[in-house]
Amino acid sequence: MKLTSQNLNERVDTLYDVIIAGGGAGGLSAAIYLARYGLKCLIIEKGKGRSFWMQDLRNYVGLDPDTPGRDIQKHGVEQSLNWGADYLRAYVEDITDLGDRFAVKLKVGKVDSTYPIFHSKYLIAATGIIDYLPQLDNMQNVYDYAGYTLHVCMICDGFDMWDQKAVLIAASEPQMNAAFVMNWFTPYVSVLTHGLFPVSDAMKQKLADHGYPLYESAIAKFHGKDHHLSGIELTDGKIVEATTGLINMGSLHHNHYLKGIEGLTWDGENLVTNDMCQTSHERIFALGDLKKGLNQVSIAVADGTLAATQIWRNIRRASPARKWEENLVKT
Amino acid sequence: MKLTSQNLNERVDTLYDVIIAGGGAGGLSAAIYLARYGLKCLIIEKGKGRSFWMQDLRNYVGLDPDTPGRDIQKHGVEQSLNWGADYLRAYVEDITDLGDRFAVKLKVGKVDSTYPIFHSKYLIAATGIIDYLPQLDNMQNVYDYAGYTLHVCMICDGFDMWDQKAVLIAASEPQMNAAFVMNWFTPYVSVLTHGLFPVSDAMKQKLADHGYPLYESAIAKFHGKDHHLSGIELTDGKIVEATTGLINMGSLHHNHYLKGIEGLTWDGENLVTNDMCQTSHERIFALGDLKKGLNQVSIAVADGTLAATQIWRNIRRASPARKWEENLVKT
Repeated sequence: MKLTSQNLNERVDTLYDVIIAGGGAGGLSAAIYLARYGLKCLIIEKGKGRSFWMQDLRNYVGLDPDTPGRDIQKHGVEQSLNWGADYLRAYVEDITDLGDRFAVKLKVGKVDSTYPIFHSKYLIAATGIIDYLPQLDNMQNVYDYAGYTLHVCMICDGFDMWDQKAVLIAASEPQMNAAFVMNWFTPYVSVLTHGLFPVSDAMKQKLADHGYPLYESAIAKFHGKDHHLSGIELTDGKIVEATTGLINMGSLHHNHYLKGIEGLTWDGENLVTNDMCQTSHERIFALGDLKKGLNQVSIAVADGTLAATQIWRNIRRASPARKWEENLVKT
Repeated sequence: MKLTSQNLNERVDTLYDVIIAGGGAGGLSAAIYLARYGLKCLIIEKGKGRSFWMQDLRNYVGLDPDTPGRDIQKHGVEQSLNWGADYLRAYVEDITDLGDRFAVKLKVGKVDSTYPIFHSKYLIAATGIIDYLPQLDNMQNVYDYAGYTLHVCMICDGFDMWDQKAVLIAASEPQMNAAFVMNWFTPYVSVLTHGLFPVSDAMKQKLADHGYPLYESAIAKFHGKDHHLSGIELTDGKIVEATTGLINMGSLHHNHYLKGIEGLTWDGENLVTNDMCQTSHERIFALGDLKKGLNQVSIAVADGTLAATQIWRNIRRASPARKWEENLVKT
């Protein structure tokens, strides 16, 4: 059932088997499996996550390579609802571990917000990440290219940079090393720091040894038309010619609501999980970009399969067997 | 490029980066990724694998739940070809490990067969499994129901058995234990041995304790209409009422071509792999149903992503860096 601020009171007393924080590809896969295992689950989706911004998913078996992320989300939400999952647009404020269940405090609505609390036995953390973008006064100028010809994932989109003039925009020196992976796809790599950090002599030498120009001024403006990049104007007036590029400035991990929970093992901002996506907290599972591993839609979808299946196994094994009563011999 | 017996000679001298044995969901995912990494790959598909027989894929994010496996295959083949993969309908006869490459001997064509040999640096084993079905004189009667209302995967289709009268058809006593998992979905489980094996007193008692009838005669005929099962007639004349069921008779693993290769680690008929689907042979990767783990489309698709990405990393790291020649300082 689709919950809204109008009808959510009908479910506030429900003890869900699973609350899924995050309605991207991983969370939706988990919901489809959980619902088909007959388990009660609630998807919480804040909107505008990484898959919402994905303009085309080029490497997922079964879908056309121009399928946008928002279409997949919409399709997956409908499928989840059809199989019996609940869905609510809301923001996960905070989670409290009550020992045998979680209390999940939500913020519903951006104006006149309410803060209902829902309960579940298990939690699936599928809130993912969002890529940091270069900050310009006119952010619309960034959005016009980011996700189109200015990519945020080399595995996804390196192919679409093939032998083109490309920029790498980094926010720290270690992130500049992506130049030496990008060069698999194109040798024409210009590296931009957006004026954010000093570059060591060793890195300057390494770039020079590869012939990759370094630009240390801030970006003033992206040039191009219809989402097709043609160049980047810097604040010192230079124009860097480029038709594509990679923004490699790190990501914000949507994991604030997990930081107060004991028993989780972190690797930086990622959760460490086992081969069924279970964290070191036995009732918390983590999917997709929040856990260690490749940030790919196909991985998140498989993660949802694994987490849902392990939770079903746990709940099933703890449940009494259903007997065929009419055949039982009365004793 | 689509290869046929007419044009395959154009590629016989190619050293592929990867030959992918098996064009199901996992092999196609690997091909899409490999092609987009700019690597040369060849998919070998014998036809009529498990995903070809899948009548509807009910739990894969992005696709309608009535999507048949053959549609996904067709779509994935077109996508692979569009990105630059090669594809050939053939049967993998035998593989020889030549140390730095594999010689892959194929059988092309069912009549007037030819036996070309192709070469690759890496091998992806994605040939999967096929479920054993009860053998009747009239196999069409089995095919009329298997994969429709008579399922072969409980994780996929348990939901569609909910509270219906169901049969479990097993080929050995351990396989009968599926009754005690199926009962999550329905308590009305009748267990059939198809006359293939004796049942221990302990198992008989366990079934009786759950109220699940046991039928030890061979199956004579499936009854029903339009793929909808209504009952099963046994050779002793009894009719077992059932509208759904699970065939749990084990599977044939399509792995004969790997049996002569040294350095692989087996767990029964499954290959043991690491978290990137690499086997203990560093140039052989295994995907989906051939490796240990859940037999799900979503898992196979993710496996293809992982294997392709690790192979790309290996090949990239062993390749010279592409420099931007015109910017290099002449020394």
